[in-house]
Amino acid sequence: MIVERSPDEMQATALEWRGQGLSVGLVPTMGFLHEGHLSLVRIARARAERVVVSLFVNPTQFGPSEDYQRYPRDEARDLELCHAAGVDVVFAPDAPSMYAVDRSVSLSENRLSKGLCGASRPGHFDGVLTVVAKLFLLCQPTVAVFGEKDAQQLRVIRRMVRDLNFPVAIMGGALVRESDGLAMSSRNKLLSPEERSQAVGLHQALLAIQAAWEAGEVRTDALRAHALKVLERFPLAKLDYLEFVDDISLDRVQEISEPTLVALAVHFPSARLIDNLVLQR
Amino acid sequence: MIVERSPDEMQATALEWRGQGLSVGLVPTMGFLHEGHLSLVRIARARAERVVVSLFVNPTQFGPSEDYQRYPRDEARDLELCHAAGVDVVFAPDAPSMYAVDRSVSLSENRLSKGLCGASRPGHFDGVLTVVAKLFLLCQPTVAVFGEKDAQQLRVIRRMVRDLNFPVAIMGGALVRESDGLAMSSRNKLLSPEERSQAVGLHQALLAIQAAWEAGEVRTDALRAHALKVLERFPLAKLDYLEFVDDISLDRVQEISEPTLVALAVHFPSARLIDNLVLQR
Repeated sequence: MIVERSPDEMQATALEWRGQGLSVGLVPTMGFLHEGHLSLVRIARARAERVVVSLFVNPTQFGPSEDYQRYPRDEARDLELCHAAGVDVVFAPDAPSMYAVDRSVSLSENRLSKGLCGASRPGHFDGVLTVVAKLFLLCQPTVAVFGEKDAQQLRVIRRMVRDLNFPVAIMGGALVRESDGLAMSSRNKLLSPEERSQAVGLHQALLAIQAAWEAGEVRTDALRAHALKVLERFPLAKLDYLEFVDDISLDRVQEISEPTLVALAVHFPSARLIDNLVLQR
Repeated sequence: MIVERSPDEMQATALEWRGQGLSVGLVPTMGFLHEGHLSLVRIARARAERVVVSLFVNPTQFGPSEDYQRYPRDEARDLELCHAAGVDVVFAPDAPSMYAVDRSVSLSENRLSKGLCGASRPGHFDGVLTVVAKLFLLCQPTVAVFGEKDAQQLRVIRRMVRDLNFPVAIMGGALVRESDGLAMSSRNKLLSPEERSQAVGLHQALLAIQAAWEAGEVRTDALRAHALKVLERFPLAKLDYLEFVDDISLDRVQEISEPTLVALAVHFPSARLIDNLVLQR
């Protein structure tokens, strides 16, 4: 396994592969890998002759008051996990090699990215799209794999691929949970023991919604009330948002008929966590 | 020579070429080709094993009061010229195949694109960058050639390539002039005979600047005065801008020491024309 720090060298390697007709799978990550990431690597490994995992905590997708500095990092462990997973190249650039001091070109999305996490994290998805476009151009993937946990991100990236004609197949990897139901996230590491025990509240709230929906409730106001009642049992969890949106347009829905994304974000004192499920007959 | 209308088919062809290790040259145009365009095709032809010319009057780079509808078009003649120039594929999509009705992702540049033409054409360069990014992803060029006549465009595109890591070498083709000095432009066709005879004023103004600079004048105020005096002789020409900017940063300069781009834009009743020169020892 090669650990590549240089964007130019990464691109040269990727272009050489593509010039030989090889398929390339890319799993973009911010590192501190967990089983969720590794499930994405397995998807890429099964679908491409060469697999690249990028490890890059992208500064431009963090707001000024967010947790860029505190974001968990453990590159040595990440490299071991990638090696064991059969990754060909780990692309781990530093920020100065990715962003010129006088950079002035960026991407933006003006519809799908405006609600949900985009409302509480202005500029976040522009930062995500810009770095993902760069990673696509540097790593030249034929397929790229993203987690369904970041549901809005996955949809915004699919929109970018469509609107800019990136020749990349985008695959979503199913959300992976801890044994108590907490969605795996690098940020779980930031939680205190008490926060960690209450973090299961996100999944519990979603389960309450799912149960009520399966019992026939389609009004999102009523479903939301079920979830809020559950969240009351987890007082360290301060709700950022809980939304029911059309799974394609991400427009809010009042009654569930088409596939609906239920997404929530919760602030704990030490980390902001997200979770989601799709309600679909 | 193949005439390709379908973005998907264009991309499939280009990816097949690249998978065979072939180099690809792209000349993006809005059609109504003239000798300036053909000089760019020759540059591409000399540097790549496959040459694509795109013909696409891109609606998103025109403002609502601009000349999108009136922009000259003659595809049959363009195809003949491309065939004679040894082009492999002419990519001539229609607008609906390039832009989904609900498109929502675009590129923007927030520094080099703000002055000069960007000041009088808000949104123009965002439209240019977005379509050029799409053309790069569809045609997969190893080299792309743009005219120096669109000096600011060339510099904004180079910035995009750098900031987003497009694996494309950008080449500028020298400005080509009519025998009386008028810079070749598809829009020259829009001029009335009287406007056409006065359109030489742009070049005359630049020549006056160059002569004064060669005689030792470095103060841009004084150089500007020389040019304005020349333009007075061409009363149909209404100045949009005449600027002296650093050739790299496009920041305005008061005295010429480093290479300086002198750019001007002039409104005639029937068309807006641009021209430029670089002052450089």
